Amino acid sequence: MRRIKLTLEYDGNGFYGFQYQARGERTVQQCLEQALENLPGAVPRVTAAGRTDTGVHALGMVVHLDAGDPVPTSRFAQALNQKLPQDLRVLLAEGVSENFHARFDCLWRHYRYRILNRRTSPVLKRYRVGWVPSPLRTELMREALHHFLGKHDFMAFATREVRPTTHELYHVDLLKHGEEIWLEFVGSGFARGMVRAMVGTLIEVGLGKRAPDTMPGLLKAADRRKAGPSAPPQGLYFMEAGYARWDQEY
Amino acid sequence: MRRIKLTLEYDGNGFYGFQYQARGERTVQQCLEQALENLPGAVPRVTAAGRTDTGVHALGMVVHLDAGDPVPTSRFAQALNQKLPQDLRVLLAEGVSENFHARFDCLWRHYRYRILNRRTSPVLKRYRVGWVPSPLRTELMREALHHFLGKHDFMAFATREVRPTTHELYHVDLLKHGEEIWLEFVGSGFARGMVRAMVGTLIEVGLGKRAPDTMPGLLKAADRRKAGPSAPPQGLYFMEAGYARWDQEY
Repeated sequence: MRRIKLTLEYDGNGFYGFQYQARGERTVQQCLEQALENLPGAVPRVTAAGRTDTGVHALGMVVHLDAGDPVPTSRFAQALNQKLPQDLRVLLAEGVSENFHARFDCLWRHYRYRILNRRTSPVLKRYRVGWVPSPLRTELMREALHHFLGKHDFMAFATREVRPTTHELYHVDLLKHGEEIWLEFVGSGFARGMVRAMVGTLIEVGLGKRAPDTMPGLLKAADRRKAGPSAPPQGLYFMEAGYARWDQEY
Repeated sequence: MRRIKLTLEYDGNGFYGFQYQARGERTVQQCLEQALENLPGAVPRVTAAGRTDTGVHALGMVVHLDAGDPVPTSRFAQALNQKLPQDLRVLLAEGVSENFHARFDCLWRHYRYRILNRRTSPVLKRYRVGWVPSPLRTELMREALHHFLGKHDFMAFATREVRPTTHELYHVDLLKHGEEIWLEFVGSGFARGMVRAMVGTLIEVGLGKRAPDTMPGLLKAADRRKAGPSAPPQGLYFMEAGYARWDQEY
């Protein structure tokens, strides 16, 4: 058996999130494992770096799986893509050491949230961005955002009280791209719903409803009800999962 | 009556092109005129700067129409948007002189074609780009592209033989954006299917199937069968229509 690392792109719009659902809803894991069942030699079980919720996209989700000999790693992506639906693709298949674990070996995860900040609702990007029609004060948002850097208990932004909610954010940024604002979050891990709750809160800061310096108090209170509403899922992208290099075969 | 200039964004995917179809297919014009019928005072007839084919998008299509008094120009966009479907929006409504004509006064039109040039088929952009899996030699494409600059009979790239097919291209460019190649065309006018036929031909150049210096001969032969296949519509965008400034009220 060989261990294979896959990098995936998917359109969150057509999936009830990443994880397998007992009631059989269409999920990324379900589609992936179903395709693997039809691939000779592959074990149809995948383990992912993270779980995305319904509607959340990925440009670089990472999973691992085990496979026997028939399909060489170099042709694995192509073979699997022929069995996958249009809204899910393997970008890259790499042979890794048999100890590689997509979740436990992941050192950092990168999420991006895209906000369209213009008067008119999104048309071509309507399943790709969150929308805020009123002008956002990005300098205030950037100030608030930087309070999230470092190690914190993010309970205030967690959808469910599943401990631990302590994570470290290594890098945050706010970038302007024409009519869009991109919020970047790179961290050791993220509690369920955490990015969307932070973004919803930052939007309230940008609208002048909250002051940037209230963020430390919010974190300390650890009460989800005191933070802002969750920003909608279609603006959120799982960009990349980072691993130590020694884990890959060369 | 006042004349109003509208700037539109639409997702070409859900429309059988811009123009009204006798058999009642869903078109941009039909949706727009239907919404105008429900807007008191507006004459439900629009005239456009150009006509886009089935599947072609617009980020800045321009139309004009006439309207009576009830809705002021400043609130016209908002009022109309409330009656339009999600995949069609008015970005801007401006009062213009009663002589303004969206088609005849248009000095230049700007089209963009987006090619995703990577091995894996598009996922998040699957209704937004053309796709070429083999690496394209952009330096050859750029060389070929520049043969189209200036005034030519573009019969070689026209879908139907409706004269005149002589137009002037004022500006062309090839831009790289990550995994995408953007082809830009600014010209006095465009024959039906012309941009997609030029792009299909340029892709063949980029694949090494045609030499850049065969473009003048292609133009001269004026035979559509000698040019390349039409690139698919979902990569094409009507970006902007240009007018002389004196035409607008200030």
